[in-house]
Amino acid sequence: MTTTPEAAAPAAPAVGVTAPAGFRAAGVTAGLKASGKPDLALVVNDGPLRHAAAVFTSNRVAAAPVHWSRQAVSDGRADAVVLNSGGANACTGPLGFQNTHATAEHVGAALGVSPGDVLVCSTGLIGEQLPMDKLLPGIDAAAAALAGGRGEDGGAAAATSIMTTDSVPKEAGFRGSGYSIGGMAKGAGMLAPGLATMLVVLTTDAAVEPAALDAALRAATRVSFDRTDSDGCMSTNDTVILLASGASGTAPGAAEFSAGLAAVCTDLAAQLIRDAEGAAHDITVRTFNAATEEDAEEVGRAVARSNLFKTAIFGRDPNWGRVLSAVGTTRAAFEPDRLNVAMNGVQICRDGGIGEDRSLVDLSGREVLVEIDLAAGDAEACIWTNDLTHEYVHENSAYSS
Amino acid sequence: MTTTPEAAAPAAPAVGVTAPAGFRAAGVTAGLKASGKPDLALVVNDGPLRHAAAVFTSNRVAAAPVHWSRQAVSDGRADAVVLNSGGANACTGPLGFQNTHATAEHVGAALGVSPGDVLVCSTGLIGEQLPMDKLLPGIDAAAAALAGGRGEDGGAAAATSIMTTDSVPKEAGFRGSGYSIGGMAKGAGMLAPGLATMLVVLTTDAAVEPAALDAALRAATRVSFDRTDSDGCMSTNDTVILLASGASGTAPGAAEFSAGLAAVCTDLAAQLIRDAEGAAHDITVRTFNAATEEDAEEVGRAVARSNLFKTAIFGRDPNWGRVLSAVGTTRAAFEPDRLNVAMNGVQICRDGGIGEDRSLVDLSGREVLVEIDLAAGDAEACIWTNDLTHEYVHENSAYSS
Repeated sequence: MTTTPEAAAPAAPAVGVTAPAGFRAAGVTAGLKASGKPDLALVVNDGPLRHAAAVFTSNRVAAAPVHWSRQAVSDGRADAVVLNSGGANACTGPLGFQNTHATAEHVGAALGVSPGDVLVCSTGLIGEQLPMDKLLPGIDAAAAALAGGRGEDGGAAAATSIMTTDSVPKEAGFRGSGYSIGGMAKGAGMLAPGLATMLVVLTTDAAVEPAALDAALRAATRVSFDRTDSDGCMSTNDTVILLASGASGTAPGAAEFSAGLAAVCTDLAAQLIRDAEGAAHDITVRTFNAATEEDAEEVGRAVARSNLFKTAIFGRDPNWGRVLSAVGTTRAAFEPDRLNVAMNGVQICRDGGIGEDRSLVDLSGREVLVEIDLAAGDAEACIWTNDLTHEYVHENSAYSS
Repeated sequence: MTTTPEAAAPAAPAVGVTAPAGFRAAGVTAGLKASGKPDLALVVNDGPLRHAAAVFTSNRVAAAPVHWSRQAVSDGRADAVVLNSGGANACTGPLGFQNTHATAEHVGAALGVSPGDVLVCSTGLIGEQLPMDKLLPGIDAAAAALAGGRGEDGGAAAATSIMTTDSVPKEAGFRGSGYSIGGMAKGAGMLAPGLATMLVVLTTDAAVEPAALDAALRAATRVSFDRTDSDGCMSTNDTVILLASGASGTAPGAAEFSAGLAAVCTDLAAQLIRDAEGAAHDITVRTFNAATEEDAEEVGRAVARSNLFKTAIFGRDPNWGRVLSAVGTTRAAFEPDRLNVAMNGVQICRDGGIGEDRSLVDLSGREVLVEIDLAAGDAEACIWTNDLTHEYVHENSAYSS
């Protein structure tokens, strides 16, 4: 067969960690999951740059891989990321940390890089040791399967192999002028049985220095993953990693790069919320006319964490009293008799009291928009959450039954 | 019939607001509840003292009766308390406050006391005006029905008429040397559809000055009602009132009185938790070896508010990883690798890692004791909570369906 070069070379994937140039990825079955589904992923930065930044859970009971990766990325360099599902390696003591170390050593040997430049992520049940006799051979298999770039989508395989209770893999991408950003995420909104972790790997072929990567990553996560509050529970393993290969040769401006990165993060965060298996409603809590953005965020988070509010939405009950009682627990600047609340466009609470008839609110669809007017300034913030359903209780209580 | 005086006079009730001398109470049906069940209560202090203290919700969106009663009790005197179920009178604007004022005026006229010495409590749906055409005649009926002391238990009627989703009335009592303390409470642990309030009235015939009453009440609620954390949601109406008649002529020591009051409050708080209709387990989270009592309380509350922990207990899953991940979100002093956790006596987490086999934990009974050793000092605190169940979701989502 003869074809033109253009026709012969399929396009690189538009989304995922191998969308930007300079990255290969793989996803394989190491046998960590009883289901036999893929459970081990590798993402490799082939450079020429190996710049990296990462943010981690602020939970003080952090998993062994979090301790390892936090230290490993502190010099702004990472050559590879290895991720496993099927075990969180959290609360596993000195042996757990040794296992993370051994994992990085094994990846380093397989790829010919320094173990200190290998980041490790784990997700699964807390308080169980990882079966290293399965994990280490899995790394060898993943190293052999590494693929990326035009027509070889190792990124999709990696995105699939980090899934736990996710029903679909989650990938996103952004194309800037002369460079691109890609990413994958796992996490199923409502945290599932013992598998309570969000893992994200972002890649870019832009040439960005580590300090700028770090600033852009913190700015992007602050308005995306940090504002996704499914059930208020903070994982021991949450990790978001950003790798830059510089393979495009393009050095975008900081503002442009930050905006693109935030778009990818927001896209992935929305995918996490949408995949909440236990949820019947996706809820956006928008707080506006706040004195500060922090006030708006605190108010939104208080409402998003109210079980009474979340069960009311599940029952299609536009119970604005539960919104106000949650707002009232915050330190935000507001006067109770100036608060306004709308649900799906209906102003059911006006000046802290009774507004339009609550029967006018239609909560039959999946999307719910709650708008809280603090009448105290001009700042605003959105928090994304879910309702609290029978399915949530079922999924999260079914572990031992 | 001839009987001895002792046989002719039945004993005063051992529990409830009319157990101490100097109090009368009543409970009637005013018609506020669609069910036709009793919904209006009066508690009257006949003196000779009319000393009073009260604590209220710290929710900034407080109901009209909370605003009224906070002001009315500020001089340390209260002659009567009127309580209604069937409507919270919260988020009801100026008209709501006028209605509370009119309620106090009506009670004052009916009893011949100053309206400024009448405390008002309401419980029910937020954001609806009270039907005053039913409430005011109900006050007249309650005033006519007032009863107390030997053989006439108006206290029981009052305790019944403040019930909302409570399955049983809640009363408690304490006998000191020469005086007694009684009390009633409403609240069904898991907060029910739109009826999210704990109301408590405590009475004593001890002669105690208002400042001492206030100190004893704050000390008692701090270790009882404040540590009962069913679903983390703070009501707009929570009120705990303490009235002292001095009718016993006994002036107990402050320590003795405080201990007795704390016993009554703890008893009532336990009854609230036990009556959580939506709960399958009553959970005590005991945090010990803490650096401070505040640390112990913060840790216990973080665990008690973790939906992942609460659903795990519902599923009889001794998932200690979810305990540790909640502990890790606090600011308490601890080292992650020195934490110990036991459930129902089995040490399933030792030194932050894997302890005894989790299959040894029996969670088939209703009572669950979670013990968290912070290994950081010698302070401790208990928080009482429930599991998160299908019934909780059902009860709190069923309002509009």
